[in-house]
Amino acid sequence: MADEVVLLDFWPSPFGMRIRIALAEKGIHYEYKEENLRNKSPLLLQMNPVHKKIPVLIHNGKPICESLIQIQYIDEVWSDKAPLLPSDPYQRAQARFWADYVDKKMYEAGRRVWTTKGEEQEGAKKEFIEILKTLEGELGEKPYFGGESFGYVDLTFIPFYTWFSVYESFGKMSIEAECPKLFSWVKRCLEKESVSKSLPDQDKVYGFVLELRKALGI
Amino acid sequence: MADEVVLLDFWPSPFGMRIRIALAEKGIHYEYKEENLRNKSPLLLQMNPVHKKIPVLIHNGKPICESLIQIQYIDEVWSDKAPLLPSDPYQRAQARFWADYVDKKMYEAGRRVWTTKGEEQEGAKKEFIEILKTLEGELGEKPYFGGESFGYVDLTFIPFYTWFSVYESFGKMSIEAECPKLFSWVKRCLEKESVSKSLPDQDKVYGFVLELRKALGI
Repeated sequence: MADEVVLLDFWPSPFGMRIRIALAEKGIHYEYKEENLRNKSPLLLQMNPVHKKIPVLIHNGKPICESLIQIQYIDEVWSDKAPLLPSDPYQRAQARFWADYVDKKMYEAGRRVWTTKGEEQEGAKKEFIEILKTLEGELGEKPYFGGESFGYVDLTFIPFYTWFSVYESFGKMSIEAECPKLFSWVKRCLEKESVSKSLPDQDKVYGFVLELRKALGI
Repeated sequence: MADEVVLLDFWPSPFGMRIRIALAEKGIHYEYKEENLRNKSPLLLQMNPVHKKIPVLIHNGKPICESLIQIQYIDEVWSDKAPLLPSDPYQRAQARFWADYVDKKMYEAGRRVWTTKGEEQEGAKKEFIEILKTLEGELGEKPYFGGESFGYVDLTFIPFYTWFSVYESFGKMSIEAECPKLFSWVKRCLEKESVSKSLPDQDKVYGFVLELRKALGI
């Protein structure tokens, strides 16, 4: 039986972008279904009844939810090509740690940069830059987070590049000036077709966030 | 070289308890080091500079942080005994999903049950019970979350049993009355020596929380 792979997604979602990149890295053909988050499809509600969130990966009719879990699933099922997690248990644990850090820390601080104002925003901005510098420190002199090849942490983090002009514009900062090495890493990732072809334009994301802020009354 | 395993922990932490159970399941000898969270040891700050949190697992001098990552590490390194995650990728993804749900949803709602008052507490209590019922639904008629044997989700969830009298007392509810099947699962888990010997008494945890609430001015 040929694999039937469906992705329920929403184009500006960095979490969805992760899965688009992972599937591209593995060369897996799939059906992309755009969701309207204000009017979620019956399929989304059926496939992710607990969180009711995108992205949902549906493999031969069975749903897998939560992007970090989806990436690990993709890597375990299609293990013959483009390994994403390292094979060594300690390196795997480190990769999981930094992917978790991106989710728990960077995403949250970044969200507060464009959803808050005044002192709260200043605090978020400071925290956000510190987090980026911590990630830059972990990257060090390596071309990718895991070493010589593009992997799990890169995949987890790079979609947020599409939100950089949102963070920079609302936080009044330059990520390139603050974290030049991290910015070189971004450029290196964007040279990969699996990445560049999976990501929307920064301008389009910025336009989306402008509309979203209006809708949220910010 | 014999494995040198050290656990930096704090006795009422459900996250630390997970690692105590995982190490017991695998039959690994380790040195337990109790941390004073108001005066963290230089070793803790050195081994987990990013989050500065327990538990930290130190294996032959190298730290592994974050309990869910630690359990997966333990399962991958000591793979010859008592498998914790299922071998099938889809079942693994499901196990990861429910462990993540315990962390993101149950722990958070539970914390609000004993740290808030009035309407906020009522909301937290309602949410907490709904979450427990969702977990009970996922358990279904199976003896353990993963099926016939004790595994990753059980290990992730069972430490919170030691906090049940905290939730019940401050939330004025009976978890056994709300979720009888879940309670049978608790009893089943407690029959395992790896579990019962790794968990502190509920009364002791309750006493700790009473003191903590005073210290926090709740």
